[in-house]
Amino acid sequence: MRIHQDKVEVPTGGPGPVDVTERVRGVVATSGVVTGMCTVFVQHTSAGLVIQENADPAVLRDLGRWLAKLAPESPEWEHDDEGPDDMPAHARSVLTRTSENIPIRDGELALGVWQALYLWEYRRRPHRRSLVVHVVGLASPGLGEH
Amino acid sequence: MRIHQDKVEVPTGGPGPVDVTERVRGVVATSGVVTGMCTVFVQHTSAGLVIQENADPAVLRDLGRWLAKLAPESPEWEHDDEGPDDMPAHARSVLTRTSENIPIRDGELALGVWQALYLWEYRRRPHRRSLVVHVVGLASPGLGEH
Amino acid sequence: MRIHQDKVEVPTGGPGPVDVTERVRGVVATSGVVTGMCTVFVQHTSAGLVIQENADPAVLRDLGRWLAKLAPESPEWEHDDEGPDDMPAHARSVLTRTSENIPIRDGELALGVWQALYLWEYRRRPHRRSLVVHVVGLASPGLGEH
Repeated sequence: MRIHQDKVEVPTGGPGPVDVTERVRGVVATSGVVTGMCTVFVQHTSAGLVIQENADPAVLRDLGRWLAKLAPESPEWEHDDEGPDDMPAHARSVLTRTSENIPIRDGELALGVWQALYLWEYRRRPHRRSLVVHVVGLASPGLGEH
Repeated sequence: MRIHQDKVEVPTGGPGPVDVTERVRGVVATSGVVTGMCTVFVQHTSAGLVIQENADPAVLRDLGRWLAKLAPESPEWEHDDEGPDDMPAHARSVLTRTSENIPIRDGELALGVWQALYLWEYRRRPHRRSLVVHVVGLASPGLGEH
Repeated sequence: MRIHQDKVEVPTGGPGPVDVTERVRGVVATSGVVTGMCTVFVQHTSAGLVIQENADPAVLRDLGRWLAKLAPESPEWEHDDEGPDDMPAHARSVLTRTSENIPIRDGELALGVWQALYLWEYRRRPHRRSLVVHVVGLASPGLGEH
């Protein structure tokens, strides 16, 4: 059994999803884990993780508009220290995930055909977001320990 | 420490929850893990996982109607390649989970008295949904490695 | 590799968030795990987990009001066996999490600077809530097995 943990920094360019699947795949490849689990954790409360369809970009546009409707900018929010997009960002992060798990099979992320992992930036301004990628499982026979 | 991974196919009969707790219990029993963690992952973005009350079926009916209100069928969605239920299904999958974790204690899923794990189908038509069930932990003394 | 599992009982005083970060930290410290993963699971369907900002309490007040708007008390709910706050509590638990994962690095929860883990009580009356805290990973060299 082996554990491999890595920090991944993701620059964001304002509101919207950033596909981080390849970055996570890179960590899994480095880990040498063939059968196991990959958990991705975002160290922020104004951005979130979501696994969604990667085929038609209209899906992501629709989701962005819909999240903005469920948690809109509004003078009703009490907390607005960093502007009108501050509190809606926290609320949208509650609707999505702080961590996502993806099983590893045959050395690959066991995503469905149309699934990708997105880091969703909810603030207006570009940020640098930190992910912790944690991989645990059995390494391939050729690579060593079990 | 042992890892056991299995794929479980779940047929759905149109919109609504399917209790998959027994299927997952079967994988845990096969794994031989006595103290550990079970993670269930759904390989689709138009169905979701949710742990909810299994006592009164009215809870599930209420949740179905409420999810449909938060993410309704509407001409406002841009993405409608597969019909009016396409995009609401993606949105409802965001509100629920792509993966759920359930600890294993004494060889059993450590669910609360009223908890069950549901796969929620969000598309109108029946589907065949794939779950990956990942179990990791310590096997019972009689069964082998630690 | 070691596994440590503990049950944590959390008294709640009616609707609102309870910061359980220190309780979880205590379990991690006892486990002796230095590099690993901590998963917290709530054994109820009318309370939920959420990782959110711990700096300004107004964030939590805003989130409470917003969750109450998305899943309000209403005569439209079919299930009301335990009163008008029964079904909204289930719905709010769907919007938040039954389990949360937090990586462990250098023997510490790898939370971001402003992150804390909250157990959110959604029922009007105080409850006693059960959490299962599951820790798995590599122990420090001085402490033993790898």
